[in-house]
Amino acid sequence: MFEDCVFCGIIQKKLPASFVYEDDWVVVFLSNQPVNVGHALVVPKAHYENIYELPEFELAYLARVVKRVAHALRDVMGAEGIRIVQNNGSAAGQVVFHFHVHVIPLKLHEGFVCGKAYRDQTRGRMFEALELDAQKLRPYFSKV
Amino acid sequence: MFEDCVFCGIIQKKLPASFVYEDDWVVVFLSNQPVNVGHALVVPKAHYENIYELPEFELAYLARVVKRVAHALRDVMGAEGIRIVQNNGSAAGQVVFHFHVHVIPLKLHEGFVCGKAYRDQTRGRMFEALELDAQKLRPYFSKV
Repeated sequence: MFEDCVFCGIIQKKLPASFVYEDDWVVVFLSNQPVNVGHALVVPKAHYENIYELPEFELAYLARVVKRVAHALRDVMGAEGIRIVQNNGSAAGQVVFHFHVHVIPLKLHEGFVCGKAYRDQTRGRMFEALELDAQKLRPYFSKV
Repeated sequence: MFEDCVFCGIIQKKLPASFVYEDDWVVVFLSNQPVNVGHALVVPKAHYENIYELPEFELAYLARVVKRVAHALRDVMGAEGIRIVQNNGSAAGQVVFHFHVHVIPLKLHEGFVCGKAYRDQTRGRMFEALELDAQKLRPYFSKV
């Protein structure tokens, strides 16, 4: 664990997050800065800064989890589209320097507008709202 | 092969593209609508519309190729950042309905501006310019 890494803090349960899935290698939790309802992050438990550091076999496993998250967001949250984004380096917009994949559910004709509405609606009770969404998603993964 | 799928046409060599890498399962070629110099697409040879259709084992293999492309763009094209994007459904901005992963090299403080400059500079000779970039990248993969 890197002392100053917020994702390591979440993985170690020292910082709060709404977990959707966890196994020996990977965690999935909801972003607390979502661009849309259900915006999930798929994160390896080991601290790798970016795709260059992440070993191929771990990336291959993590990609399978990303696919399951996409299915869950479609089936549980009613996503009409899914955008998957993974940024490496400040030049690409990476903010937390612990490898992570964004899995973002979208609805037709809504774009990311809904994300702003979500943040506005949940002002002051973001974590409660995220936890409710996470509760909906978690049973999906017990079926995997 | 789906008759009306442009990526199937490229994979079957019936449509032109600047190939960077090819094996039994996956092709990598440069986007002919790049958002930046070196914008590459990683595409399974079999026609799957989206991540829901793509089997997990093929996705896991394809993710390894994505990682190699990221390394190549950093080492050969001097990318300072890499953004990886994969869209599923019109709601997420998918335009070609054959699964593909965008691997986009970026430079600090340039954002995507360079992509417009690239298109302007190569006006009328886009394919020649793409082919020159592909030539630089191809030797990297013979080392894999």
